[in-house]
Amino acid sequence: MSPPSRAETFPAHTPAVSQIFTTVLSQGPLTRLELSRRTGLSPAAVTKAVRPLIEAGYLVEDVAEDAPPALGRPATLVRVDGGRALFIGIKVTGDEIIGVLTDLRCRILVVRHLPLPGRTPQQVLAATTGLVGELLTEADGMDVTVMGLGVAVSGDVDRAEGAVRYSPFLEWRDVPLAELAAMATGLPVTVDNDVRALTVAEQWFGAGVGLSDFAVVTVGAGIGCGLVVHGRVVAGAHGVAGEIGHVTVDPAGPLCHCGNRGCVEAIAGDAALVREVRAATGTEVADAAEVLELAHRGVAAAREAYARAGDAIGRGIATVANLLGPERVIISGEGLAAYDLFAEQIRAAFHAAAFGSAAECDLRTRPLPFDEWARGAAATAIQSFIGSEPVRARSTP
Amino acid sequence: MSPPSRAETFPAHTPAVSQIFTTVLSQGPLTRLELSRRTGLSPAAVTKAVRPLIEAGYLVEDVAEDAPPALGRPATLVRVDGGRALFIGIKVTGDEIIGVLTDLRCRILVVRHLPLPGRTPQQVLAATTGLVGELLTEADGMDVTVMGLGVAVSGDVDRAEGAVRYSPFLEWRDVPLAELAAMATGLPVTVDNDVRALTVAEQWFGAGVGLSDFAVVTVGAGIGCGLVVHGRVVAGAHGVAGEIGHVTVDPAGPLCHCGNRGCVEAIAGDAALVREVRAATGTEVADAAEVLELAHRGVAAAREAYARAGDAIGRGIATVANLLGPERVIISGEGLAAYDLFAEQIRAAFHAAAFGSAAECDLRTRPLPFDEWARGAAATAIQSFIGSEPVRARSTP
Ligand SMILES: [Zn+2]
Ligand SMILES: [Zn+2]
Repeated sequence: MSPPSRAETFPAHTPAVSQIFTTVLSQGPLTRLELSRRTGLSPAAVTKAVRPLIEAGYLVEDVAEDAPPALGRPATLVRVDGGRALFIGIKVTGDEIIGVLTDLRCRILVVRHLPLPGRTPQQVLAATTGLVGELLTEADGMDVTVMGLGVAVSGDVDRAEGAVRYSPFLEWRDVPLAELAAMATGLPVTVDNDVRALTVAEQWFGAGVGLSDFAVVTVGAGIGCGLVVHGRVVAGAHGVAGEIGHVTVDPAGPLCHCGNRGCVEAIAGDAALVREVRAATGTEVADAAEVLELAHRGVAAAREAYARAGDAIGRGIATVANLLGPERVIISGEGLAAYDLFAEQIRAAFHAAAFGSAAECDLRTRPLPFDEWARGAAATAIQSFIGSEPVRARSTP
Repeated sequence: MSPPSRAETFPAHTPAVSQIFTTVLSQGPLTRLELSRRTGLSPAAVTKAVRPLIEAGYLVEDVAEDAPPALGRPATLVRVDGGRALFIGIKVTGDEIIGVLTDLRCRILVVRHLPLPGRTPQQVLAATTGLVGELLTEADGMDVTVMGLGVAVSGDVDRAEGAVRYSPFLEWRDVPLAELAAMATGLPVTVDNDVRALTVAEQWFGAGVGLSDFAVVTVGAGIGCGLVVHGRVVAGAHGVAGEIGHVTVDPAGPLCHCGNRGCVEAIAGDAALVREVRAATGTEVADAAEVLELAHRGVAAAREAYARAGDAIGRGIATVANLLGPERVIISGEGLAAYDLFAEQIRAAFHAAAFGSAAECDLRTRPLPFDEWARGAAATAIQSFIGSEPVRARSTP
């Protein structure tokens, strides 16, 4: 459980080093020539960036077993040595925290779930510290150092400051979570919005690999969106971005917790589904799982609630496509369990509202369990470790 | 009227060279130290990028007249030599084309307007060729070579291909304008969407200087939007981006030419204003200028049409802010003449619909006459010349 020593920091936090490392991490193993082609860096710049990474053991280069010899020499491939360092990622949900221990390639080695006794910062911090302790013990058994901890929380999170500014779901305001968790665990801590963390995981290892412009839309208790534009996750100059849940679909629609009417979330979020089915049937409905069950049993009110939800989500995605023109939109979240109930409406509303060639955007569904969200949190810790964390957009003075 | 010779191309199309040049162009004169700070490049990389630019005469370095001596030596400043090259920018509107001759610093030296006899590609191309000929004659008198032509057209424009895919306003489809204009003028030609071109001008020389995330919203015949995210203009993976005009404000609202109901443009575009006032008053109204006159005379129907327009525009801007969190939104366009009639509604609707800290976004109005749009077209030609044109987002194979 020793914290990382100074000698074990990443070689050099230059843009080229970060770019080379993330390219090998997400697309490798690759030849140096291919690395040069994919990053746009010169072969000399690739060599300069690769050398210290190999010397420090983060990258290794070896002969490809099945590669044909090039110019008489066998081709050598550069890859990340996953065993060189470990990371921990934590995703906080309403009733539990999910922790993963990953290697440097962000492969999940251990997963642990821990129920939360409550949602106060103290309770979440205590549970996080406990779970991190368990995962550090696992890491000790592997004799590899854990180099960082990522924590993913819903809401307005200021990653640069390490603070949760406002999480409506957890009812937190201005919690300096990175500092508190660093004191409690002894690890360098990165705190980020959970949908953005998931988006990093998709960008590096999922359906966003190799795309410079895509979006992740998560459907569940809230409707969230992570955006990658020009190859980088959008954080917003003031901390807010990707709020697809509060795109207006119908100004005469149901009231939203944000104060407006007819937001996507006010029509398609779990609470909206429950409320609509209660109102239509006059019976008590416990949660979204029950709405789903009713819909699968053919109850009309439940099926209609999902149809309206699909329409709202499809319009929200079209708004993203009309403004940003992403190559792909990845639809995920707990709500995906109900996808058969609203897939048709999502696609129909998207195609009706997408402008011109924005309709060419590839809509794709991906089941991403909370383990993947925790993996995203670990990915943000790897980003911080290698020095590629996004810098908040600010004007030059 | 000689075309640029091969010897006069820009030194090296590396990212560092483009970045250094555009930083000096938009923020200079600057010391090398300040250039290093603002670009994030090492002092050695700055020196390496600056040297060929000075040797080729595009940058000059001289002693600042009013600068205090640093370390005993007077500080030297790097600046663009505006007189080193000339560029032409053309903005196509419905009834005329506007052409500007600019220097390398994109300062307007000559402006010419030419009425269009019609909107067919042949008519626009003939007018463009004539106007470019006049401006080349002016350039001959200055004894400086024109290095490129930029043409800005409304609609879906594929800059990489040099083609206007679809311009509803001009009623064009798949016009290879760059190729046609290059054949007719002998100049290298860059064709871009007009709002994106204006956004480049704002990014380099206007209210977007030094900002990595901002938006330009243009109000007039159409409602357009140029987006800068992570320091680069968003083009969209499929050519469509910034379509704020087709963000839905009211699904029960008036029919839009895109086929949907209640788009921002269907409520706030010039045609919508005219239609609404006609319907409310039962009298013939010629154009938006007449609606503006009626509103200023106190005609209730005209004032109400503007109020509804302001509400729709404010909601559209809030959608942009909620998704991208820009630092600033610059509101401009011909419709700005009516700004006093809807400013209040724009701000009120924006603040009501902006989510959390997205409301901190700075809304600013800027009168940008069509000369500025033509200047934006010249700026896109300068981008192409220095090799910093945006590359279309594509997946790596
Ligand atoms: Zn809302
Ligand atoms: Zn429309």
